[in-house]
Amino acid sequence: MKEKEFSKKMVMPKKTNIKYCEGLVSIADRYELLHQRGIAIWFTGLSGSGKSTIAMALEKAFFEKRKLSYLLDSDNVRLGISKDLGFSKKDRKENIRRIGEVSKLFVEAGFIVLLSFISPYRADRDEVKRLHEAANLKFVEVFVDCPLAEAERRDPKGLYKKAREGKIENFTGIDDPYEAPVRADLCLRTDQLTLEEEVAAVLGYLECNHIIDVQCLNQSDSNRQNAQEIKSGASV
Amino acid sequence: MKEKEFSKKMVMPKKTNIKYCEGLVSIADRYELLHQRGIAIWFTGLSGSGKSTIAMALEKAFFEKRKLSYLLDSDNVRLGISKDLGFSKKDRKENIRRIGEVSKLFVEAGFIVLLSFISPYRADRDEVKRLHEAANLKFVEVFVDCPLAEAERRDPKGLYKKAREGKIENFTGIDDPYEAPVRADLCLRTDQLTLEEEVAAVLGYLECNHIIDVQCLNQSDSNRQNAQEIKSGASV
Repeated sequence: MKEKEFSKKMVMPKKTNIKYCEGLVSIADRYELLHQRGIAIWFTGLSGSGKSTIAMALEKAFFEKRKLSYLLDSDNVRLGISKDLGFSKKDRKENIRRIGEVSKLFVEAGFIVLLSFISPYRADRDEVKRLHEAANLKFVEVFVDCPLAEAERRDPKGLYKKAREGKIENFTGIDDPYEAPVRADLCLRTDQLTLEEEVAAVLGYLECNHIIDVQCLNQSDSNRQNAQEIKSGASV
Repeated sequence: MKEKEFSKKMVMPKKTNIKYCEGLVSIADRYELLHQRGIAIWFTGLSGSGKSTIAMALEKAFFEKRKLSYLLDSDNVRLGISKDLGFSKKDRKENIRRIGEVSKLFVEAGFIVLLSFISPYRADRDEVKRLHEAANLKFVEVFVDCPLAEAERRDPKGLYKKAREGKIENFTGIDDPYEAPVRADLCLRTDQLTLEEEVAAVLGYLECNHIIDVQCLNQSDSNRQNAQEIKSGASV
C-alpha cells in the first residue's frame, strides 16, 4: 500500500483565503490503523428496490468480519444534514452533493461507507464518483435493479400507493424520472436474487477486485492478531 | 458500557414519509470494534488563536496511541460540504449546522472528531452541542482563548492585515463579532501555553473525566485487554 496513492490532492480553492489543510496523520496512516482501505459503496435504485436492506445486511457482514463500515441512508440524512432540502431536481442535486462530500470524508477517514440513496439523476451520481476518484479514493457504484412493477408491488412504506393517489409529488418512478446507471460496477437484480446472494455478490466483487480483503479477520482472536499485524507492519 | 446509552434516539421526522433507520450494527458495536468511544472535541476561537495547530497535534497524538481520530477543519469543509456558503451570519449558521450534523455521524461511527472552527456565535455552537447530547453522544467544547491583539500579531495567513485594509469583510474580531463560550469544558490560553502543554491539557481533561482512556493502548496486549474491559462493563 503506497502512501502516495492515498494522499489528498491539492484542491483549488473556490473562495479567497481558503486552502486545503493536509494534517499530520495521512489517509494511509488511518488505513493502516484500521487494517482496511476506505471505500464508498453507492447503492442506487428505485424506492423499494432493496438498497437499504442490502446495505444493512452488508454493514452487519462487515462487522462480523471486524471491518468498520457505516451506513448512510437517505431517510437518515434527510433528517440531518439535508433537512432543509425538498425533492425538486435542484434540491435532489444538492442533497446528493452534500452526501458525496460526507462520503469523501468518511472514505478518507478509513471507513467502508455504505450509501443507500435513490439518487435518480446520472449526472449527480457521476459527480460524486468524480469527487472520490479525483482524490484517489475508491468508489463502487451498485445498481440495485428492480423493475418498477415489482418495487411497486412490494411498496414496503406504502409510498407508491400514496404517489399513485397523488398524495406525494416528485416520486421517483411515478412522476419523477429514474436514470439507470450506464456503467455500474455491479448490478443486482433484486427481483431474482435472495438477500444472501446479493450480499455475497457485493463481497465477492470486492474480493475479486482486491478492493478490500473481507475474509482475513474471521478468527476468534482477530483483535489480538490485528494488533500484532500493526506492529509488524503487515498490510491488509 | 451500556448499549442503551449509545442507542440512537428516535428523531421526529420533519418531512412526511421519512423515519429514522436504525441499522443492524449499533453504536456500541462500533465503539467495541474500535476500542474507543466516539467523541466530538470542538475548538472555538479567533482566527490565528491556534485551534487547528492544537487539533492537528492532537490527531497525531491520538494516532500514536492507536486511537482513531479525524480532523474537520474550517478551510477544508468550506471547500467541500459548505462550498456554496459565504460568511454572512446566516451562512455561518448553516455552515456550523452542517458541520454539526457531520460531526454527529462521525461520533456515531466511533471517531474522536476534532473540529476546528472559529464558530463565532454562541447559539450556533450550543445547537451543535444539543444535537450531540440529545443523541447521547459526547461533546466537549474547548475555548481556544487568545487575545485579539496576539492573534492579530501572529496573523499566520495575513488575514487580519487584509481585514484591516478592508480587503476582507465579515472578519471575526474585526468587523464581525466573536461570542466567547460561557461554560466551555476547557479553556486554553494559547498566548501563555506551549503547544505541548495545550495537547497535554486536552488529553488530561479527557482522562480525568474518564471520557476516553488515552493511555490504555500503550501496552503490548492492549487491544485484547480493552475488549475484555468493554465486555465486563468497564468504561473507557
